Amino acid sequence: MEKFDLIKQLKQPSSEKIVLLVMDGLGGLAKQNSKKDDTLKGTLTELEAAHTPNLDTLAKASETGLMVPILPGITPGSGPGHLALFGYDPLQYIIGRGILSALGVKFPVQDGDLCARVNFATVDTEGKVTDRRAGRIKDEINRKMCEKLATVGIGDVQYFIETEKEHRAALIFRGREMSDQLSETDPQTTGVPPLPVRPLDNEKVSKATADMINNFIKKVAEKLKDEHPANMILLRGWALHKKIPSFEEIYGLDACAIAGYPMYRGLASLAGMDVIDVESGVVSQFEKLKEIWGTHEFYFVHIKYTDSAGEDGDFDRKVSVIEEVDQNIPTILNLEPDVLAVTADHSTPASYKAHSWHSFPLLIKSRWSRMNREVNFGETDLTRGTLGIINSVDLMPLLMAHSGRLAKFGA
Amino acid sequence: MEKFDLIKQLKQPSSEKIVLLVMDGLGGLAKQNSKKDDTLKGTLTELEAAHTPNLDTLAKASETGLMVPILPGITPGSGPGHLALFGYDPLQYIIGRGILSALGVKFPVQDGDLCARVNFATVDTEGKVTDRRAGRIKDEINRKMCEKLATVGIGDVQYFIETEKEHRAALIFRGREMSDQLSETDPQTTGVPPLPVRPLDNEKVSKATADMINNFIKKVAEKLKDEHPANMILLRGWALHKKIPSFEEIYGLDACAIAGYPMYRGLASLAGMDVIDVESGVVSQFEKLKEIWGTHEFYFVHIKYTDSAGEDGDFDRKVSVIEEVDQNIPTILNLEPDVLAVTADHSTPASYKAHSWHSFPLLIKSRWSRMNREVNFGETDLTRGTLGIINSVDLMPLLMAHSGRLAKFGA
Repeated sequence: MEKFDLIKQLKQPSSEKIVLLVMDGLGGLAKQNSKKDDTLKGTLTELEAAHTPNLDTLAKASETGLMVPILPGITPGSGPGHLALFGYDPLQYIIGRGILSALGVKFPVQDGDLCARVNFATVDTEGKVTDRRAGRIKDEINRKMCEKLATVGIGDVQYFIETEKEHRAALIFRGREMSDQLSETDPQTTGVPPLPVRPLDNEKVSKATADMINNFIKKVAEKLKDEHPANMILLRGWALHKKIPSFEEIYGLDACAIAGYPMYRGLASLAGMDVIDVESGVVSQFEKLKEIWGTHEFYFVHIKYTDSAGEDGDFDRKVSVIEEVDQNIPTILNLEPDVLAVTADHSTPASYKAHSWHSFPLLIKSRWSRMNREVNFGETDLTRGTLGIINSVDLMPLLMAHSGRLAKFGA
Repeated sequence: MEKFDLIKQLKQPSSEKIVLLVMDGLGGLAKQNSKKDDTLKGTLTELEAAHTPNLDTLAKASETGLMVPILPGITPGSGPGHLALFGYDPLQYIIGRGILSALGVKFPVQDGDLCARVNFATVDTEGKVTDRRAGRIKDEINRKMCEKLATVGIGDVQYFIETEKEHRAALIFRGREMSDQLSETDPQTTGVPPLPVRPLDNEKVSKATADMINNFIKKVAEKLKDEHPANMILLRGWALHKKIPSFEEIYGLDACAIAGYPMYRGLASLAGMDVIDVESGVVSQFEKLKEIWGTHEFYFVHIKYTDSAGEDGDFDRKVSVIEEVDQNIPTILNLEPDVLAVTADHSTPASYKAHSWHSFPLLIKSRWSRMNREVNFGETDLTRGTLGIINSVDLMPLLMAHSGRLAKFGA
């Protein structure tokens, strides 16, 4: 029996509310270059170095452990990392970057849509790229360019081009059978022209899709030739959309997302969550949770800045973000959620300056938590957590169970 | 998506070097029959009882854990134990003993070859086995017998018989479609004649193969009838060779093996590793590693004697072997490998006197190790290791990740 079939069969209604707080890239490593007078800190991860009295108290009253995002050794992008958290097997449900961009701007993607990420760029009179980001144009300019491109016709295929932010936009083709086995046009460097789209396999549909898009790009270039600096587009992340079962279908959960960044809003939307308008930031997002409390059964709260600090290699800033979250944990606790999970989607150790494969902390607080009262919320302590080391895809069934939403399997 | 496909898709080149040090059968159990005046030792495994300052220091600076070789409760032979370490699902890649024998004598096994293990044996005038090992004849005699048997013809089928050691040799048939669904001829006792080969299924090819081999054995008996003590052969471990994807194909790794024993040389060769000529022994093997350092990207070093001591039920000798390895660990550390893993292929507790199903220690030392500085390198401490309890097949992706050889999965 497939896991989703098992869950669908066992799921039952409940009025209990679940909060899933994800601190993006929370997992870390000990500081690699610890100062000599800072020896203790040098042996601690970002989370362990942070002063987190609220999370530590919570951990002692929670079921705790560590989670492996995909498989040992495999480093996830944000897509697979979150899909796994939401319970989707990330090796089965593979979501391309283009779809995430489209979902991030709230575009209602349909089955069979072909999506790509757009960069507005600058090319010189010979057609060579001089700036891959068109000087990071303002959102306002971006919107005007998108409006201008709305009238480029390409026969029977519909298309939509939607402003994301600065030089970025989402492009969606619709209305005929298409392939996403296509090369990207971004040359990843300047001084050369954009690359043509080439089919990546020998299927007829891939060749036809590439031809259609190359024709589209030609018309776009013609339309933008007198503009500056955004006089060309670069296309990446081709992805054909295939609907995935929703949170409602699988878990029977009425879910919402309080996420400040487009990609995570997109991922939540893909899973069928309501995406709440909110400004990115620990305080504003937690306050939004408070404001809408009671409207849904499941609240996914996504904090981005732990990951950003990790990617920037800024150990101390990551510590600060963690401490800011910790200080605001009472805002969530005061709502008295029946089930509260605090975790991450992957590790982003400041020393590694990128997503990594390492496991990351998890706590689940409910009436039914089995506790180890000796642990703080940190990677080393959690090797003794009551859940051990589990996989991200195992989280959702646990949250369902803790909220009384899974009946007994078998007699 | 299959795991190997995922790894192939994500693998990227790196100049970092990996050492995989396998102490065969390292995992153990507390001494069962401790003397009353030796109560502490009685509570420790072989590894815990051993004085291992180098491995303990290393463990504190490493990612650590325990590995389950196949599945909980399943005791592996050397073949599945090592295949799992090399990342091959041992329930999917099943390698017969006959192939390991052939590979162990460096015979270039090809797709479709049928391999078996040979024992030279002694039979009396009635054809009854009097010694299943022909008095453990010298290698020199073995070689002469093999030469003699080279001229036994069996029609269109080619065969090769190659000296292994003492009374053991490898036999390979080639050149027609064959089956390995065959019974063995070794009666496992004396006073009875060797058994005929019987097909183990109803396939025509199995029957034909059995007939061909019985005809071969008849001719061999005729050829050896005036020899003594090796005047017969016993055949075991039938296995048809099917090529498996190589380390190069899966991981893009240029790998070599520093192993003293034929079977492990054979297993390494099967995975496409270069097999280095070396004398078995901790010092000679570590010195060989030093000598060839820089010629490959991945170095598999296999120490046999921990397992031999365990199989002999000799707790103290196993402790000694572990201590010898520990004393020589600096030879490896001085090479400054980017990634060093120290582990086993399975447990061979001295009290159990055989391979067992118990998990066994693992440490992975790299720049990116998440550490628990409170653990020593011993089974009990490693229950609090940062990796938890993983499966042997999960090791290779971790070593790939630690050496910078796996790109991020998904956007």
